Amino acid sequence: MLKVPEHQVAGHKAKKGLLGPLVDDSGKFYKPLQNNDARGSTELSFYTTLAVTPAIRRFFPDFYGTAVVPASDGSGPHPHLILEDLVSPYAKPSVMDVKIGSRTWNADDSEEYIAKCMKKDRETSSLPLGFRISGVKDSISSWEPSRTFLQKLSAEGVALLLRKFVSSFNAEDSDRDCDFAAEVFGSVLERLVELKAWFEVQTVYHFYSCSVLVVYEKEKGKAKPVVKLVDFAHVVPGNGVIDHNFLGGLCSFINFLKDILQPLHH
Amino acid sequence: MLKVPEHQVAGHKAKKGLLGPLVDDSGKFYKPLQNNDARGSTELSFYTTLAVTPAIRRFFPDFYGTAVVPASDGSGPHPHLILEDLVSPYAKPSVMDVKIGSRTWNADDSEEYIAKCMKKDRETSSLPLGFRISGVKDSISSWEPSRTFLQKLSAEGVALLLRKFVSSFNAEDSDRDCDFAAEVFGSVLERLVELKAWFEVQTVYHFYSCSVLVVYEKEKGKAKPVVKLVDFAHVVPGNGVIDHNFLGGLCSFINFLKDILQPLHH
Repeated sequence: MLKVPEHQVAGHKAKKGLLGPLVDDSGKFYKPLQNNDARGSTELSFYTTLAVTPAIRRFFPDFYGTAVVPASDGSGPHPHLILEDLVSPYAKPSVMDVKIGSRTWNADDSEEYIAKCMKKDRETSSLPLGFRISGVKDSISSWEPSRTFLQKLSAEGVALLLRKFVSSFNAEDSDRDCDFAAEVFGSVLERLVELKAWFEVQTVYHFYSCSVLVVYEKEKGKAKPVVKLVDFAHVVPGNGVIDHNFLGGLCSFINFLKDILQPLHH
Repeated sequence: MLKVPEHQVAGHKAKKGLLGPLVDDSGKFYKPLQNNDARGSTELSFYTTLAVTPAIRRFFPDFYGTAVVPASDGSGPHPHLILEDLVSPYAKPSVMDVKIGSRTWNADDSEEYIAKCMKKDRETSSLPLGFRISGVKDSISSWEPSRTFLQKLSAEGVALLLRKFVSSFNAEDSDRDCDFAAEVFGSVLERLVELKAWFEVQTVYHFYSCSVLVVYEKEKGKAKPVVKLVDFAHVVPGNGVIDHNFLGGLCSFINFLKDILQPLHH
């Protein structure tokens, strides 16, 4: 009983003729293994060899192996990673995908891929802000801005968007109430500060084009968010050097959250 | 009584026919104001408008205004910044210049300048490590590796070079004694952790192509280093965003120092 995910905000989407992820009713997320390049095998080997402490393991989706299932594009059986469906516990999830790092490529990539990524990093907020919002959605109000709009936001635009993500009043042009800021971003901040401490010392992995995914239920008292890292198709060995690209972008994103939370404490 | 600095390890050097910095006998450093582009005025306005707390101000050289003095290249009177000569208190200084950041350019630079910087960032350790060693010198042993050699070092090469910088035994192929590691890098680390705390919150300046300069006297009991930021010709406004490029590189450099200090504590 595989179906197209209802709340996917970033990445390739399954459509007629397009290969994309699928979900089942038991909370599993089936991600197609790309077989046209190394990306699929990179992500598979990342999950199969991931060796971190239990506290850090919580930042990653659960992994249940691989399976050959009918592809979303109707092309027949195709190998998929079986992952935890992070939005499945939520009735009406609010979801945000934030791609971390001012640079989404690394030195070992092909010149063609580097040029493509560099162009996008410069056209979006990645270069100036150290991250870009790849997707966002509020299942209650059906608010789901286009990816192009999101990725190119200025610092002011990102701040407004983040405030809207944690507001209950979603009329386009009004002030944000930020009703959920303390509960949601307070908790996200705690998790990200923990993640930052790990990135300050870990030299095993460099995460290019990887995202922080935030999911929460926009309902008072139930809004504790989940914070996970997703997308490991471009993880490379750190070889004794910290991931300064991810760390810098993460610190920048943390600073945006702090800016929203700080006025609440006055 | 202006003369060519004896211990300059990076930047344009004054030579016959070349414009470079000069020093006097009173501890002042005269840096030519570039008049062929915006760099000189950028650095001048940085020093004249710098508004930070006294604790952070200590990371920057003292600034004494400008003066028109005879240029080092013999072309006659030329405007210079008058700065603190950071090595003047030292009899036989050991000096290291570390250019921080994986990227030495910003989005407002010309395409030509961006291409030039990007090429160099990729050819040197800037891209993989988040910093490159621009120059190093030990005035006792006259050890002064070439800049090209330094800038292209691998992670292992940088670690070895840093160990050599704090060793008293400087024979090229022997083990490093790291006799000065605890005294010098212990103190550098303290200062850089303080600097990092500032970079985690300051959104006023983005420092491209800026260096951390470390100077100390290789003599037991007198080896307390000075740690300063230098070169502000490419500082741009932060506009509410932290300098994630500098911060990431700084964290990477800090991690290299920690790796050298940690075994000493066992």
